[in-house]
Amino acid sequence: MDVEAVIEEVLPRVRPTEEERAFVEGLMKELEKLAVETIVELDLEVKPYFVGSLAKDTYLAGDHDIDLFLAFPLKTPLEELRKKGLELGRAIAKRLDSYEIAYAEHPYVRAYYRGVKVDIVPCYDVKSWRDVRTAVDRSILHNRWVLENLGGRNDEVRLLKRFLKGIKAYGSEIYVRGFSGYLAEILVIKYGSFLEVLQKEDFILRQKVIDPGNWLKREPEIAMKTVKREAEEDRPLIVIDPVDPRRNVAANLGWERYGVFHFKAHQFLEAPSLSFFFPEEKAGGSYLEELRRKGTHMVTLLFEKPNLVDDVLMPQLERSARGFERALQREGFRVLEWNVGHFRGKAFIMLEVDRLEREKVRIKPGPEFFTERGWDFYRKNERVWLRGKRLYAEKRVKEGIVDVISELLSKNQISLGKNLRKHVGDADVLLDYVPEELEEEAYLLLNREKWNLKR
Amino acid sequence: MDVEAVIEEVLPRVRPTEEERAFVEGLMKELEKLAVETIVELDLEVKPYFVGSLAKDTYLAGDHDIDLFLAFPLKTPLEELRKKGLELGRAIAKRLDSYEIAYAEHPYVRAYYRGVKVDIVPCYDVKSWRDVRTAVDRSILHNRWVLENLGGRNDEVRLLKRFLKGIKAYGSEIYVRGFSGYLAEILVIKYGSFLEVLQKEDFILRQKVIDPGNWLKREPEIAMKTVKREAEEDRPLIVIDPVDPRRNVAANLGWERYGVFHFKAHQFLEAPSLSFFFPEEKAGGSYLEELRRKGTHMVTLLFEKPNLVDDVLMPQLERSARGFERALQREGFRVLEWNVGHFRGKAFIMLEVDRLEREKVRIKPGPEFFTERGWDFYRKNERVWLRGKRLYAEKRVKEGIVDVISELLSKNQISLGKNLRKHVGDADVLLDYVPEELEEEAYLLLNREKWNLKR
Repeated sequence: MDVEAVIEEVLPRVRPTEEERAFVEGLMKELEKLAVETIVELDLEVKPYFVGSLAKDTYLAGDHDIDLFLAFPLKTPLEELRKKGLELGRAIAKRLDSYEIAYAEHPYVRAYYRGVKVDIVPCYDVKSWRDVRTAVDRSILHNRWVLENLGGRNDEVRLLKRFLKGIKAYGSEIYVRGFSGYLAEILVIKYGSFLEVLQKEDFILRQKVIDPGNWLKREPEIAMKTVKREAEEDRPLIVIDPVDPRRNVAANLGWERYGVFHFKAHQFLEAPSLSFFFPEEKAGGSYLEELRRKGTHMVTLLFEKPNLVDDVLMPQLERSARGFERALQREGFRVLEWNVGHFRGKAFIMLEVDRLEREKVRIKPGPEFFTERGWDFYRKNERVWLRGKRLYAEKRVKEGIVDVISELLSKNQISLGKNLRKHVGDADVLLDYVPEELEEEAYLLLNREKWNLKR
Repeated sequence: MDVEAVIEEVLPRVRPTEEERAFVEGLMKELEKLAVETIVELDLEVKPYFVGSLAKDTYLAGDHDIDLFLAFPLKTPLEELRKKGLELGRAIAKRLDSYEIAYAEHPYVRAYYRGVKVDIVPCYDVKSWRDVRTAVDRSILHNRWVLENLGGRNDEVRLLKRFLKGIKAYGSEIYVRGFSGYLAEILVIKYGSFLEVLQKEDFILRQKVIDPGNWLKREPEIAMKTVKREAEEDRPLIVIDPVDPRRNVAANLGWERYGVFHFKAHQFLEAPSLSFFFPEEKAGGSYLEELRRKGTHMVTLLFEKPNLVDDVLMPQLERSARGFERALQREGFRVLEWNVGHFRGKAFIMLEVDRLEREKVRIKPGPEFFTERGWDFYRKNERVWLRGKRLYAEKRVKEGIVDVISELLSKNQISLGKNLRKHVGDADVLLDYVPEELEEEAYLLLNREKWNLKR
């Protein structure tokens, strides 16, 4: 199959049908009317905007969440915007099917209407990046810029997004670190088409800095500061936001996800196939067999999922897993790999370790011998010896990894996500065994399928 | 027991008796006569000198090796000195009981006469440090300086030497790294007596630089260069040689041996006892029990001892043990401690390790993904994943430590002493077992008695 043939097959699956289009457009009109009415009722000076992929017409078929932004005048004090914004959002949402309050930088309303999710978000009505006051304010500017520059290449964006989704490199959430929708749009605008973005992948990485807004000319000082800062953070790409020279659009893109894109882009061009866009789910295998094959072991901590959104929970679980990795390493167990997640009200941290038991004594490094603390150490320990200036002694320790973990937890010696301490403290610790729901995750962790670039 | 009482008991045991004194003095006279006769016979312009603790009268009772130096005029070319020196030494030695050729910087003759070892060493007849051409030339200057400055405190030196021997901190050989006899003499000369050296131990360490020759005034540039160089090498003490401002008398003193002196000096002053000078040999224990107690394991390499003197062999064995430590660490085995040595024609390297088996797969770090080598790595391995920019893959490996060691040796991946490669390559590898002759060494290694400061 050649590239064009594949694209011909993908297009009808990512492009919304006329029916879908009519449905969401109707929905948006209805919502706009509702919003304007409510604004008038509450006597507010607020403009409703639609933003996001729906408003830009770059959404994938079947994937139509609505973002309704309520733009307050710049003169509104922040506190008032928070209060009135939530009030207004709630008043609109009450006229829809259902709603809840969600929390990001500021609280907003997440409503559902005719099966579609509608985020109702208060923001400032900014005209330029100099006005930006809250994280969401830029969305209106992004929307405008894309509409002005896309020039009918909407389907090219759809192809790129679907490709990124298929290879699991889509999503700028902190626990994904992939490509955002806006970044995909910018790449298509800059390089012309889905295929050209893929063909220029090597060049894009080497060039590193993309400046579609021409900020390096227009605001050299600010733009250079952004480039320097992001280069120091060692980002794979620095895409100066065309609507704000202070921001790298690709700030959340990690090397891992970029690497996946790197390999998959080349492979797709060499051997195009539908499976890049719509991968088949691979048949799983037995994690117990993997443990036997590798001669390694698995420790799983299972605990009640704290009531946090994924954006907050996942990074904390990751931080905790890294905390376990470091603490166990210090204690003589090697953590080869880890994985975190949650299912049905339970959160889990899975650790692949090299062994479940360690030697019964450990060497305890002490201070330099000629210090006051040197004498203390000398007096307190039974066997004391020197390596260079440093004193060492022997220490009896727990042998099994479960005992070691409980001791580390009770002594507060594992750095954990801040909202997880209590939950992890009460965790069940499972050795070389997981509940049925996690068997697949365990298998994917152990055989690295989860991250396998060649999957 | 108070300090004076202890010293009263030690003195008669370290001070040579009148009989011993008469015996060695007779011996020296006889040797001198022989040497002078032989020099005349060979028609050489050479002066015989006695150096070392016997010539300085600081030898311990029963410990009377003789150092006979044959001093050639400065004008003698080095090659001639080596050749004629050996010739002359041999000619003298032939009139003694037996002899052999030994090798240091230059070959010399080691003879035995009436049960006493006599080293016959050619050197230059130097008058000042500026004349020094070979490593042994300073001995004559050392001898003269000690004789001029000791002022009758010979027994104080004997006490200090015996104390250092008792606590196992005596000997400047590279594999001991303790106090030399000359350093002990300088300390007594500088601080007045055995007790004062012990009392001032803290002060000596803090002051760090000792300059009995007043070189920092007489030759400030050269002496400061010595101080700087030795400070950079982080020596515990910098004792500028009173006969040569370029040299640190304590260059071979390691922190470990100094640390032993530190603790033992304090302890002796707090609770004086004969055992510091004449320690009782502690009863040994079972190394197998130690292995059980600690939950660790022991790997012993046993091989034919290469025909090298200890000064050369021991550092090479140590280097090899460290090579094993690093190589095994890289392979996932932790080396907790090691010990080397030889007995009855066999040399050994003992390693205490955390386990004998490891997991069956290892994680192989690869190059950064966006390089040419990145593609190679990607193509060559089955499972490939990313952590940051770096590719990783899985590798099947040998499980048992014996297999791992043979593979490392066959691939030349252990850094070994240069004369040991062949011998170590043919070594027997013993697991958790040693031949009877090594049982005590194994026990001392495992329970750290060998280095235990509290022994």
